[in-house]
Amino acid sequence: MNNDEKIILAHGSGGKLTRDLISASLLKKFSNPVLAELDDSARVEVGSNRICFTTDSYVVKPLFFPGSDIGKLAVYGTVNDLAVMGADPLYISCALIIEEGLERSVLERVVDSMADACQVAGVSLVTGDTKVVESGSADQLFINTSGVGVLPEGKEFGIDKITAGDRVIISGTIGDHAIAVLAARQDLGLKLSELESDCAPLNRLIKTVIHRFDGIKFMRDPTRGGLATVLCEIAETAGVSVQVRDEMIPVRREVSGICEILGFDPLYLANEGKVVMVVDDAIADELCDALREEDLGEDAAVIGEISGENPGEVVLRTAVGGSRLITMLAGDQLPRIC
Amino acid sequence: MNNDEKIILAHGSGGKLTRDLISASLLKKFSNPVLAELDDSARVEVGSNRICFTTDSYVVKPLFFPGSDIGKLAVYGTVNDLAVMGADPLYISCALIIEEGLERSVLERVVDSMADACQVAGVSLVTGDTKVVESGSADQLFINTSGVGVLPEGKEFGIDKITAGDRVIISGTIGDHAIAVLAARQDLGLKLSELESDCAPLNRLIKTVIHRFDGIKFMRDPTRGGLATVLCEIAETAGVSVQVRDEMIPVRREVSGICEILGFDPLYLANEGKVVMVVDDAIADELCDALREEDLGEDAAVIGEISGENPGEVVLRTAVGGSRLITMLAGDQLPRIC
Repeated sequence: MNNDEKIILAHGSGGKLTRDLISASLLKKFSNPVLAELDDSARVEVGSNRICFTTDSYVVKPLFFPGSDIGKLAVYGTVNDLAVMGADPLYISCALIIEEGLERSVLERVVDSMADACQVAGVSLVTGDTKVVESGSADQLFINTSGVGVLPEGKEFGIDKITAGDRVIISGTIGDHAIAVLAARQDLGLKLSELESDCAPLNRLIKTVIHRFDGIKFMRDPTRGGLATVLCEIAETAGVSVQVRDEMIPVRREVSGICEILGFDPLYLANEGKVVMVVDDAIADELCDALREEDLGEDAAVIGEISGENPGEVVLRTAVGGSRLITMLAGDQLPRIC
Repeated sequence: MNNDEKIILAHGSGGKLTRDLISASLLKKFSNPVLAELDDSARVEVGSNRICFTTDSYVVKPLFFPGSDIGKLAVYGTVNDLAVMGADPLYISCALIIEEGLERSVLERVVDSMADACQVAGVSLVTGDTKVVESGSADQLFINTSGVGVLPEGKEFGIDKITAGDRVIISGTIGDHAIAVLAARQDLGLKLSELESDCAPLNRLIKTVIHRFDGIKFMRDPTRGGLATVLCEIAETAGVSVQVRDEMIPVRREVSGICEILGFDPLYLANEGKVVMVVDDAIADELCDALREEDLGEDAAVIGEISGENPGEVVLRTAVGGSRLITMLAGDQLPRIC
């Protein structure tokens, strides 16, 4: 660390700089095996039970965007971080940091939305906190939600269970959330009437398939940093390579269109209602079909496979036979997307 | 609610307006019996275990102040919210909202302090999140910590257990934290060299006495809103009155001096290492002596008693025979104190 180094936006991108910051400044200092796993939730023991515990702050701008808002995002985001660990989300907390001067009606809309989201996801909001800071010391409203879930017995998921021959599934189209927020933030001069954030709770979808199928190795929701970052983490941490096929990755036409115009790569765009699964080859197609029967999985696709060669590499193969290496997001495409 | 009402700083004071906001905007919408108790932590069941779950965001300004800093405050504050429920704090989360441009060395100092605090309190930081917002969209650094603790079997505490005849104990001097932060924030032109925040983890102190004594009815740490707010909550919620004796309440000379000059009332000042206990009359003196044997309780005092008359009232009696009614903090004496 350079002594006069400053924090930049890309430190919050979910990509390489976030990882570097966490490794250099946090992991070493809080050295414990649970934190070191860097999973979406911590797996810990309380008495005779195994629980998952997770936290996320939400700073999305603007507070309301097509298909969702900061309130739903804060509930579903934390629900999903528990669900991808295989846990049943039970309880969430809600801590508000409010900028002085926020219209009370805006706060009410957000809280209503959180209450709806708790009902939809089947979780109870059981504890909270409210802080107010001076005008100019925050941007309208930041929300932290933490969550507690219970792990089912006899089901173990983890990046260390991934082996060569496994296949990679994504539960639907990528980039919808990031582009919906971008559309709400800036007047793009583009018609985006049909594009909405994919913000949704994944716990029921995941519960359905984990109870029906043995052979699911690992799950993660591709939020900040997008699909690419999840694939890079798999390759690095599991010591494998990941081969994905470009034409199999579901992307809405509106999303790919805007990405072409603005120079974004959909692989790095945040999603808020999608899960990446690495599964045993033997169940991949059947599991994908099962996902496609569910509303939240109707565009699910098997997008690639795990190989033991060239560990650490993520390769994207195109339909015409080309290939390129995918690396972790280095800068920040779109700050404050969640 | 007025339609164009705006949030003001006093909504975050921990006093009356905070209560009003929570009642009107949060409790109704998330109606569930656990949240409705408005305890420092939620008591919930996970499998066969009873756990406590709590959250707090820390927005204290400045980040460093005599005797402590935002990092220690964030760890001990959440540890204390679990401890006053009688729970053994086990795990905490850490979610950072960083303003772009923060010196990395400042972040390192805070994180070092959090790591030390986790060691001192005996908790593991197991999960985290890092967000970065643009310069001007936050004020340096906000930290949310949530915590999970396990409730011991056979020990039940609650405001509903309080009855007439019980006595009220405070574990030490009041107002030290608020005045230390104020001293760091503004050049008061006063010599405050010996005054430090009381920021400290209460879990060991509390564990010692709850295992030794039966008859502790209720505990709370008097943070935002101070001792007065805790006493008003007791009177209102338990339907009793509280009589406290002015001369028994421990206040450092530096604190009472500054309060006189600036017009603050120490009863409303935030503390970060004190606990208010309501206990059976039969154990009050012995318990107070036991607290005084511990470093964190050396100034503990029995400061008053519970009566069944005039429910809802808190009365402060002075040494010369006067008395005044204590009400919940209506405005905000000092914003961003925690």
